[in-house]
Amino acid sequence: MSDTSASLPVHRHVKGGLFITFEGVDCSGKSTQVKLLSQTLRRDGYDVLETREPGGTELGERLRDVLKHGIENEAVCDQAELFLFCASRVQLVRNIIQPHLEKDGVVICDRFADSTTAYQGYGRGFDLHMIEELHQIATCGRWPDLTFMLDLTVEQMEQRGQMRLDSLVVQDRFEDESRDYREAVRQGYLELARRYPRRMRLIDANESRETIQRMIREIVDHALA
Amino acid sequence: MSDTSASLPVHRHVKGGLFITFEGVDCSGKSTQVKLLSQTLRRDGYDVLETREPGGTELGERLRDVLKHGIENEAVCDQAELFLFCASRVQLVRNIIQPHLEKDGVVICDRFADSTTAYQGYGRGFDLHMIEELHQIATCGRWPDLTFMLDLTVEQMEQRGQMRLDSLVVQDRFEDESRDYREAVRQGYLELARRYPRRMRLIDANESRETIQRMIREIVDHALA
Repeated sequence: MSDTSASLPVHRHVKGGLFITFEGVDCSGKSTQVKLLSQTLRRDGYDVLETREPGGTELGERLRDVLKHGIENEAVCDQAELFLFCASRVQLVRNIIQPHLEKDGVVICDRFADSTTAYQGYGRGFDLHMIEELHQIATCGRWPDLTFMLDLTVEQMEQRGQMRLDSLVVQDRFEDESRDYREAVRQGYLELARRYPRRMRLIDANESRETIQRMIREIVDHALA
Repeated sequence: MSDTSASLPVHRHVKGGLFITFEGVDCSGKSTQVKLLSQTLRRDGYDVLETREPGGTELGERLRDVLKHGIENEAVCDQAELFLFCASRVQLVRNIIQPHLEKDGVVICDRFADSTTAYQGYGRGFDLHMIEELHQIATCGRWPDLTFMLDLTVEQMEQRGQMRLDSLVVQDRFEDESRDYREAVRQGYLELARRYPRRMRLIDANESRETIQRMIREIVDHALA
């Protein structure tokens, strides 16, 4: 009996689901870690849904395109941008994230509401109380169980950004921002990490890919236990 | 001198601009009255900008398409819909409405924030306080100077809606709603008219096109005087 069971795939469920998000600037290695965590958890038998923000739904992907690349001959104002992020988020929560958590699965999302607090709140200076009110609607009150914030200093961001440019990866709107803006976004994330220490874990993005992967998996295993 | 001046076009300016919106259900004759008022004010020398919501900008028109016709194979949730209306509105206010008012022009808009209060607030049951907070951001605090609400009872709406269907005009998502919903939307509008009697003027949409046009123009002339 033990021989056959060893070859059968294991199906692991997490009661009520586990909702994990990744935050940080675009060149922090976030998306790589999302993929690595998804792969290892799937290999271990968890029902993993990997998604991203903005995006993850048909509506969200259409809005992502507008948010990333803008509209020809028209500037999308900061307030419209804020609402579009919220629209994409709530569509993802209701149509994709909530149903998967209800099936006791694991959701891993590349960016979530903290991005809006960091970029639009701390970065662009929108009122933080107002952003909290928008989060109430856009998250449907379902916050992540765990958030990994891959941290880099502004100097490190710029160095990585330049490497990206040098390798001819196409730049998007968010990468074309000032140093003060980047610093404000980073400080916003650090403030969130101080405010929500149980949920939000700071990870030094300068560590090796493997070290980061191991640190993240340890924290996730603890949450799954 | 008087002979030549009589043939010259008159250019009238309104200090700080005049912002007029039209509200009511889709078959209330609202869009016809928007056009008639625009025409007569232009003829009298005013710099009139005629626009609509959702829409009026490139972003807004893209969002209008999603809001009116939905997305294939995906239900747009009520909360996402709410945010999309807000995104379209603030883009219109900042890029189109505010600049035209600053040039002392007249803006005539087919639907505005009251539609969200009536349809999403009273109709779909979203918290009215929360909607007020969204309005603060989406209107940039610039409310219309005058709002004409073309009122019909639910029976009259249904009768006109049936005539539209019979004439094979394409139905959109909002026209495919229950009687209770329509009644709630109407009561929402009536409540707004009670709350803001100076700004919002109820017009019986059963009057003839010409009578309605004359009533509206009289109120507008009073505001322009």
